[in-house]
Amino acid sequence: MMEFLTQCRGIVGDAYVLDAPADMAPFLTDWRGRFTGKALAVLRPGSVEQVAALVRACAEHRVALVPQGGNTGLVLGSVPDASGAQVVLSLVRLNSIRQVDPVNRTMTVDAGCILQQIQEAAAAEGCLFPLSLAAEGSCTIGGNLSTNAGGTAVLRYGNTRELCLGLEVVTPQGEIWSGLRGLRKDNTGYDLRDLFIGAEGTLGIITGAVLKLYPQPKASITALAALPSPADALQLLVLMQDHCGSSLTGFELMSRYCLALVAEQFPQLPKPFAEPHPQYVLLELSSSESEQHAVGLLEHAIGAALERGVINDAVVATSVAQSAGLWQLREHIPLAQAKAGKNIKHDISLPVSRIADFIAVTGPRLETAFPGCQLVCFGHLGDGNLHYNVAPPVGISNEDFLDNQDKVNRVVHDSVVSFGGSISAEHGIGALKRGELAHYKSAVELNMMRAIKAALDPLGIMNPGKIL
Amino acid sequence: MMEFLTQCRGIVGDAYVLDAPADMAPFLTDWRGRFTGKALAVLRPGSVEQVAALVRACAEHRVALVPQGGNTGLVLGSVPDASGAQVVLSLVRLNSIRQVDPVNRTMTVDAGCILQQIQEAAAAEGCLFPLSLAAEGSCTIGGNLSTNAGGTAVLRYGNTRELCLGLEVVTPQGEIWSGLRGLRKDNTGYDLRDLFIGAEGTLGIITGAVLKLYPQPKASITALAALPSPADALQLLVLMQDHCGSSLTGFELMSRYCLALVAEQFPQLPKPFAEPHPQYVLLELSSSESEQHAVGLLEHAIGAALERGVINDAVVATSVAQSAGLWQLREHIPLAQAKAGKNIKHDISLPVSRIADFIAVTGPRLETAFPGCQLVCFGHLGDGNLHYNVAPPVGISNEDFLDNQDKVNRVVHDSVVSFGGSISAEHGIGALKRGELAHYKSAVELNMMRAIKAALDPLGIMNPGKIL
Repeated sequence: MMEFLTQCRGIVGDAYVLDAPADMAPFLTDWRGRFTGKALAVLRPGSVEQVAALVRACAEHRVALVPQGGNTGLVLGSVPDASGAQVVLSLVRLNSIRQVDPVNRTMTVDAGCILQQIQEAAAAEGCLFPLSLAAEGSCTIGGNLSTNAGGTAVLRYGNTRELCLGLEVVTPQGEIWSGLRGLRKDNTGYDLRDLFIGAEGTLGIITGAVLKLYPQPKASITALAALPSPADALQLLVLMQDHCGSSLTGFELMSRYCLALVAEQFPQLPKPFAEPHPQYVLLELSSSESEQHAVGLLEHAIGAALERGVINDAVVATSVAQSAGLWQLREHIPLAQAKAGKNIKHDISLPVSRIADFIAVTGPRLETAFPGCQLVCFGHLGDGNLHYNVAPPVGISNEDFLDNQDKVNRVVHDSVVSFGGSISAEHGIGALKRGELAHYKSAVELNMMRAIKAALDPLGIMNPGKIL
Repeated sequence: MMEFLTQCRGIVGDAYVLDAPADMAPFLTDWRGRFTGKALAVLRPGSVEQVAALVRACAEHRVALVPQGGNTGLVLGSVPDASGAQVVLSLVRLNSIRQVDPVNRTMTVDAGCILQQIQEAAAAEGCLFPLSLAAEGSCTIGGNLSTNAGGTAVLRYGNTRELCLGLEVVTPQGEIWSGLRGLRKDNTGYDLRDLFIGAEGTLGIITGAVLKLYPQPKASITALAALPSPADALQLLVLMQDHCGSSLTGFELMSRYCLALVAEQFPQLPKPFAEPHPQYVLLELSSSESEQHAVGLLEHAIGAALERGVINDAVVATSVAQSAGLWQLREHIPLAQAKAGKNIKHDISLPVSRIADFIAVTGPRLETAFPGCQLVCFGHLGDGNLHYNVAPPVGISNEDFLDNQDKVNRVVHDSVVSFGGSISAEHGIGALKRGELAHYKSAVELNMMRAIKAALDPLGIMNPGKIL
């Protein structure tokens, strides 16, 4: 392995091959601090050509590599295993915005660009790059692409997959595939782009991308609706989409328990309603025309919802500060959970039409298995995506309850699958959910995935132990 | 082969194994009548299980098969070769709408459903299935998916790829992959769905799909703008998108020559302007609110365009009949071309921002090589997709001019590629453009495609001779 490291130093320079434990440490522990791996070295290339040369060295010496962006993943996809035989290949030095084309509404970027940097570069040209998620100040676009990240704008703009037109990829053979096309239509053979998107670095290393931009909306307006039940939230969704079409840019469900938890942990945040309600929906409308247009549209739709008895009450934000306050309620749910102690998390999706039934059925199943357990259920209802977290009953410690993780997962995921849902909506599989994937996917699908993996990465050096 | 056919008859019944020449004829000639292949038989399964059993029989006997839907493809992708050793596997008997879910805004369909049948079933539930193209009365959704069809609604709703959430596929081993998920978010492993979409039946047979539906717009309004140049058309596109956002649902460029050709061949159609202009753009706006809203939005945007001198003139349709009349101008361009005689067609795409430069550069190159040749240039400008057709100079017969096909292709495609464009925007590769694909794609990309093909279809029985 000395020869391998010498070769790597020759490629990127001594300063960019880290092998001292203190230097490597920040690259070895996952974002939530649940696992710390070991690595032979951390490699920090400064160009696509260096990435390719490093991969060729890895292939030659049969060294497995773990591509890493901002290391903000939630499923242990970007940290090495415990063997100490893998290298981390960090992409963060590839951080140039290569080009912004406001007429084509595209942007060409390095994989290591921070998401927020991309949002800002788009805004500077009067455009919107819609991908938005909690880690946007730290995560890289390469990681977003490799995990097909979701976030809060999927309802209108889609997942990261839908925001990408072209890719540049270093293959497991250390070749560079230049697929940086800025085209809305291109039917010339197999869709390799979408194969690499969401592959979590197991088929190749994304080094650059062409992203789709949108016109900046002229105005956005936020409201919070109070509702009797998840079924009413579904009715509200249909009503809002029928009234507002693609102007509806946010639709987030939060249960009474979620907002109670936020109020308890963050008493300084706004309390929009005097009395509690069973469910809440945070609504966001964006208009390409004017604030007046957005307000009129929202008030008209909310009026119709009140009239039909779909909602109990609603508050509409009348200032940017009020709007931010309403979003803070939503964003503070995970933070309030963290302050209250660890719980068992699920990132699931369902056909939107099945969500109310799923919630109605799954809660009692958990209650039967774990009497008194607390459900923290919130999420991107418009996308069918719930963050369905289970906290311990009063009187049981969080640590003790975590011992039930596998059993709780089985109850929740069995229910998800019975409703035609997914056990990973937006976080991916990584090493964390690999067992769950093997448990739930059909043999036909797993065999096709394995055949593709073997065909593109016959040496098995690309992020082994993730997904498959 | 007798044994193979006996086996097929056992699977689908005698009536659905056609081997008499007269019975097979409709399945052997392509839509434009350019090529007639031969087949061992035409197989017409009536269920997914029968498709799977037929594929297993093909695999056992090493018989190559050509999946076929409505056989409306334009690149010889759905007809057999001249060997007589292949079978056509027609999907048209699989034609049930399996389910419509208006809350999830999805529809589950058999691959053999006709596109128009799907549009109508969506409309019956108050929803829109936006895919729309000239062959919609004959083409099947399985063919649309296998070629990732484009059409006139891509600007707002995307290609067929973007309209599909899940697939059911019979693999080259004759297994059934049930990937019929109606989920907006699902990050559980490799994106097999998008690998089969656009693969033109070379990796497996799509037998069913979950499609995305949208709310029906409340109103649509059409206008025709007259402009000095393609560069002005690009400025108009940016201006319209900034003003109207996703309400802009159509943006079609037509040159002066195109409309002159239509006027000559179809004198009964409307003539919106007294004097000719260098370029025209057909605009369509849709509103989720009201006709009044659509009209206001369009008039405001057109006013701004006139004020800035981006357009010379515009007519706004004030009735459904007028709107249909304007669309007829666009739709009659290919028909007028056909009446005028055969020409050399290109289905190309470019970064939207490069279109004016492409047009400016490529015309003179063709003029140099083929003095007096006539350009019929029109298309979905908002998607960067041009139908760039070359007709013979006056005095040269269409047949004689067609002998120059390869040379004309080379001039046009070289120019397309130099601007970062695609040689097949929405029609695919099939057998027709296989040579062009091999000429222009990088070795890295071709090798990855071949590796995937070999991994999923090691016997090479799925539509051989297409794409690769």
